[in-house]
Amino acid sequence: MTARTTPDPQRERPGRIMSHEMAEQPAVLRRLLDTGGPRIREVAEQVAARAPRFVLLTARGTSDNAALYAKYLLEIRRGLPCGLTSMSTTTAYGARPDLRDVLVVTVSQSGGSPDLVASTRAAREAGAVTLAVTNNPDSALAAVSEFHIDIMAGPEKALPATKTYTASLLALYLFVEGLAGGDGGAALPLPELAADLLARQSEIRALAARYRFAERMVITSRGYGYPTAKEAALKLMETSYIPALSYSGADLLHGPLAMVDNISPVIAVVTAGRGGEALQPVLDRLRGRGADLVVVGPRAQVDQASAGFVLPTDDVPEELQPVLEIIPLQLLAYEITIARGQDPDAPRALAKVTETH
Amino acid sequence: MTARTTPDPQRERPGRIMSHEMAEQPAVLRRLLDTGGPRIREVAEQVAARAPRFVLLTARGTSDNAALYAKYLLEIRRGLPCGLTSMSTTTAYGARPDLRDVLVVTVSQSGGSPDLVASTRAAREAGAVTLAVTNNPDSALAAVSEFHIDIMAGPEKALPATKTYTASLLALYLFVEGLAGGDGGAALPLPELAADLLARQSEIRALAARYRFAERMVITSRGYGYPTAKEAALKLMETSYIPALSYSGADLLHGPLAMVDNISPVIAVVTAGRGGEALQPVLDRLRGRGADLVVVGPRAQVDQASAGFVLPTDDVPEELQPVLEIIPLQLLAYEITIARGQDPDAPRALAKVTETH
Repeated sequence: MTARTTPDPQRERPGRIMSHEMAEQPAVLRRLLDTGGPRIREVAEQVAARAPRFVLLTARGTSDNAALYAKYLLEIRRGLPCGLTSMSTTTAYGARPDLRDVLVVTVSQSGGSPDLVASTRAAREAGAVTLAVTNNPDSALAAVSEFHIDIMAGPEKALPATKTYTASLLALYLFVEGLAGGDGGAALPLPELAADLLARQSEIRALAARYRFAERMVITSRGYGYPTAKEAALKLMETSYIPALSYSGADLLHGPLAMVDNISPVIAVVTAGRGGEALQPVLDRLRGRGADLVVVGPRAQVDQASAGFVLPTDDVPEELQPVLEIIPLQLLAYEITIARGQDPDAPRALAKVTETH
Repeated sequence: MTARTTPDPQRERPGRIMSHEMAEQPAVLRRLLDTGGPRIREVAEQVAARAPRFVLLTARGTSDNAALYAKYLLEIRRGLPCGLTSMSTTTAYGARPDLRDVLVVTVSQSGGSPDLVASTRAAREAGAVTLAVTNNPDSALAAVSEFHIDIMAGPEKALPATKTYTASLLALYLFVEGLAGGDGGAALPLPELAADLLARQSEIRALAARYRFAERMVITSRGYGYPTAKEAALKLMETSYIPALSYSGADLLHGPLAMVDNISPVIAVVTAGRGGEALQPVLDRLRGRGADLVVVGPRAQVDQASAGFVLPTDDVPEELQPVLEIIPLQLLAYEITIARGQDPDAPRALAKVTETH
């Protein structure tokens, strides 16, 4: 008897904590839209009044991928040049850059990592406007930052972060829209669309079978979907331990393509819009090389691939699609892990709050 | 008979183009110091006179790792906040950030990639001070940039970049020192030290045997050595196709550590100085988990690892060590590739100038 024919597979399967938190995502997104929105807009207005000219984003792990998403938003939608912080320049080398006119955004689920607290404190002393985006308004990071945004995802118990990732993306979207006085109304359909995606877990289970014996994976995207590719690779590695390499499509052509061919299956995150368009030459090249190509994206793209998962794109502007497109990939990491006989709730080495200094 | 006892192993081995270019590195570094130095200082003085307040670095592949090295230098030694560009924001999404007071540094061996040319042109139009760092003063990139630095590495024929990486690092170092009027004199011992490292190829050959059958590798570092870890991973993937994952030590603790243990050998690049000190807790944790840990770094660090390669550190300040520490890792990629019966000169998918748009 296979897992698919078991009456209640969920009950007997490992990974219940991760599964539960993935399932919470529609409710988390709705709460953030209904309850968090006005406060985020208020913070955005206050930050906008300070007229930052440059943004530095600081985070680690899953939050670093959320920060990268914010970088695309800030550059494309607000015309603000951005950088991701190399934290050791402050914490190990004691660098004290001149941060006047700089907004420093620190993203952290727990808000408890000492190096993030130290680097945010240093940034504030160096003249930066500091904003913490966390899941804990009582955290040390929230306390040292001038501004704070609560992602309101509720306690996260699973070791692989899922609901806090999508909540961070949405909170950052609302913040960036709020910088120009926007209310982020385009995000309203997200909770329902997220629920639709979660209801399609059986499709993902079928897809997971392709990767049960994979020794490596490559995940690629361009533009707004690139943070999704990075986060999907991290999720896969944290749960299944498969070496999953993520590349922007352009970088893939600069070298690692040698690894693809018949030896690495490729997942392409094709965001409907300019990012997906910019990825087309890469997809053509991969198809031309006979790569095993699975597409997460619009129907027309999936139809040209070896297999895939169709995303709804009609009512979702490109910049909001990352909030949805990670969900099937979270499910995929979960299902592959189970297919390989491992437990997504028991990664071997993860601690919930990582104390790097 | 093994390769080690063959009278002239080089003659019969594949990878002669890559091998030749690795061997050129001492001469390339010397030429840059002797002939290029004054011109780089001049460019640095002119850029410094424009008083940039932020720096954006743009590059792909190997050059992106050189750009990351420059980011550490600029933040730590010059106190300039930096970011690495997400190029698609300009080329795919048409973002036009306000780049007044911003220095945009574009690093490219060929200077011919159309997207780099387009994004540099857009940056100049948006008010940035633009600097191209290339191996070709006649390139389109050099032409569209206000300033140009020639890395003077001579024609690069091998597909895996080696001499242009170390030349880019040194050129960027001389530039960053020149911004504050420095002459980069600390770099003078590098050519001879590089020659000493290259003479130790047999040590690397022995080390390569550990990885002949590896299915994956993890490479970690912190601070100035982190670009080395990234570049070593890229070199390994381009030549041997082994999935090589690079992480800053802090990021490694945030998830991917689950992949280490007995299934992934780890190479740690331990830069003598604050970066290496900040890596100690990560090394302790890896040793505690029984990981197969190879250290490239100071003698005392190598002695505590499973194996390693000792770097000279006495006469080299921490910020210059990356120019040297990549050399044994280039040799390692080369030797592993040969040990696996492949040809470092014939990666399956690389084209010399990658035309991404």
